[in-house]
Amino acid sequence: MGVVVNLDEDRTKKSSLDALKSYVADDLKAVNQLILRRMDSQVDLVPQLAGHIIVAGGKRLRPLLTLGAAKLCQYTGDRHISLATCVEFIHTATLLHDDVVDESHLRRGQETANALFGNQASVLVGDFLFSRSFEIMIEDGSLDVLRILSHASSIIAEGEVLQLMTTNDTQTSEDTYLEVIKAKTAQLFAAACRIGAVVSDRPRIEEEALESYGMNLGIAFQLIDDVLDYSAKQATLGKSIGDDFKEGKISLPVILAFRRGDELEREFWHRTLEKLDQNEDDFAHALHLMEKHGALKDSVERARHYGAIARDSLGIFKDGPIKVIFGDLIDFCIERAH
Amino acid sequence: MGVVVNLDEDRTKKSSLDALKSYVADDLKAVNQLILRRMDSQVDLVPQLAGHIIVAGGKRLRPLLTLGAAKLCQYTGDRHISLATCVEFIHTATLLHDDVVDESHLRRGQETANALFGNQASVLVGDFLFSRSFEIMIEDGSLDVLRILSHASSIIAEGEVLQLMTTNDTQTSEDTYLEVIKAKTAQLFAAACRIGAVVSDRPRIEEEALESYGMNLGIAFQLIDDVLDYSAKQATLGKSIGDDFKEGKISLPVILAFRRGDELEREFWHRTLEKLDQNEDDFAHALHLMEKHGALKDSVERARHYGAIARDSLGIFKDGPIKVIFGDLIDFCIERAH
Repeated sequence: MGVVVNLDEDRTKKSSLDALKSYVADDLKAVNQLILRRMDSQVDLVPQLAGHIIVAGGKRLRPLLTLGAAKLCQYTGDRHISLATCVEFIHTATLLHDDVVDESHLRRGQETANALFGNQASVLVGDFLFSRSFEIMIEDGSLDVLRILSHASSIIAEGEVLQLMTTNDTQTSEDTYLEVIKAKTAQLFAAACRIGAVVSDRPRIEEEALESYGMNLGIAFQLIDDVLDYSAKQATLGKSIGDDFKEGKISLPVILAFRRGDELEREFWHRTLEKLDQNEDDFAHALHLMEKHGALKDSVERARHYGAIARDSLGIFKDGPIKVIFGDLIDFCIERAH
Repeated sequence: MGVVVNLDEDRTKKSSLDALKSYVADDLKAVNQLILRRMDSQVDLVPQLAGHIIVAGGKRLRPLLTLGAAKLCQYTGDRHISLATCVEFIHTATLLHDDVVDESHLRRGQETANALFGNQASVLVGDFLFSRSFEIMIEDGSLDVLRILSHASSIIAEGEVLQLMTTNDTQTSEDTYLEVIKAKTAQLFAAACRIGAVVSDRPRIEEEALESYGMNLGIAFQLIDDVLDYSAKQATLGKSIGDDFKEGKISLPVILAFRRGDELEREFWHRTLEKLDQNEDDFAHALHLMEKHGALKDSVERARHYGAIARDSLGIFKDGPIKVIFGDLIDFCIERAH
């Protein structure tokens, strides 16, 4: 019975992403076609590997943000199509490199490109998509767009290196964690939104409002993603949980539980996440400690805080259906946790 | 005695690269300073790793081409400094990813970044340098330069994937091999030269002449690099040889020896390079077969062909010291083989 209710709730919450997809359906179709066309290469392995990760999965959340932001700015041209494609290519390139760096073998329940095609091809096709993305931007010709997306790209890379340095370090502070997720997730959300305003040639206040919306939505999104990896709800829905724990990833729920715990508990986190010395009861104990200290609940609260900032940043835009959808999208990102 | 003569010859041949370095000494100093400044990051591991590969080694051949090409076009501004830096960053990013892909542990006799800092950091710092390179280009503001270098970057990535697909395949044709080295080496030489003309705002004929010079010089350079890995001369100078053989890399000397050999010899190449089933006498036998079929000598001849095209492409420029140096550079690239 409880499960049925959960599933119903889940469907309701998904609807704001679906609403966005419907609202920009023609644009999204054009983006999907352009993705297929521009990932092509005479070297067969390139479209094979790129196709595996791009075509198969993915919510297309980031390009949808660009398409939606352009609509919010009442844009009527077609430059947002190719720029949304650039955003997806940059995202895909970072996913390909991420999976190599993390030695992941599954993504969204499917085998990763590196598992199927090898690390070498994943690194190189990532490089190709990244370069191709810049080629498309250059065809578009806006130095402002180029500035925004190249800056986002180097911030993402720095963020990934920072994350690498904090891996398995239970002493990581909440501030450092925030810096990492801002860089590796939120920066591209922010850029994806901002370029919607740039192509529409809107005043700086709208550009910055959309950047702020994307940045704060991205932080909330990543916080909830990290919560979901410890969520009983996910488990009842048949999704896998506990991957972050297995890898010793230091996310906010861990940081809060570690800081709020006693000496003995810190010893536990140190052994399981830093030394990666885990036995089969440890994940259940981790969940217990998080429950005890309200670590998951409070991580969701932190996400709500950023969601609230995202919502306020939309204030300056005229009311209309896309503004409602962008507002609902914040709820969608956060309410996934329940 | 023979060795002494060889060493003397070597010094003479080096002089054209040294002559170029002296001719653009102030510019090169400025590039080295800018490299240090722009590879910096608040994430310490970034400059540590980048510094290891950029500061320690390298001939700076590609940025020197940009600096020299600008001089050949009588350029008097300072944009070539930052663009030469971009070229070196792109080159370094590809080296970092290359070493991960090839699982190399030594480069220029030093431990590689991936050996010292791990594959993960090498992939990510490569991404960072690549993004940073685009940021610098965007500050420069020329869409033409951006177009040239982003196109070169995606060709390089495609070339690397193509190389991956031909690894250990003794049936690789000379044409496919040429396509690989054009993409992975010569394209960046061509771009490095061409942007020297672009910043100088020279007519299209000079842009294309410099691109052709770089492309053909790059092909010759890589051909000779591949010959040197089987060169007795290198061995007498104490440099390591035989790495390509050990990895089963299919380079032109192998392609020629394979095609000119009989059934038994092809069996040998198949076993050693495709199956990587090698014993300690095999490398000596490989050298013997190359000698027998003139595979090294004729690879050098192929290099001379491209060198001749590079030389002719310089014809349209006014005579002067930098034109002489660019001509001598072709000899330097080729005569290294003797």
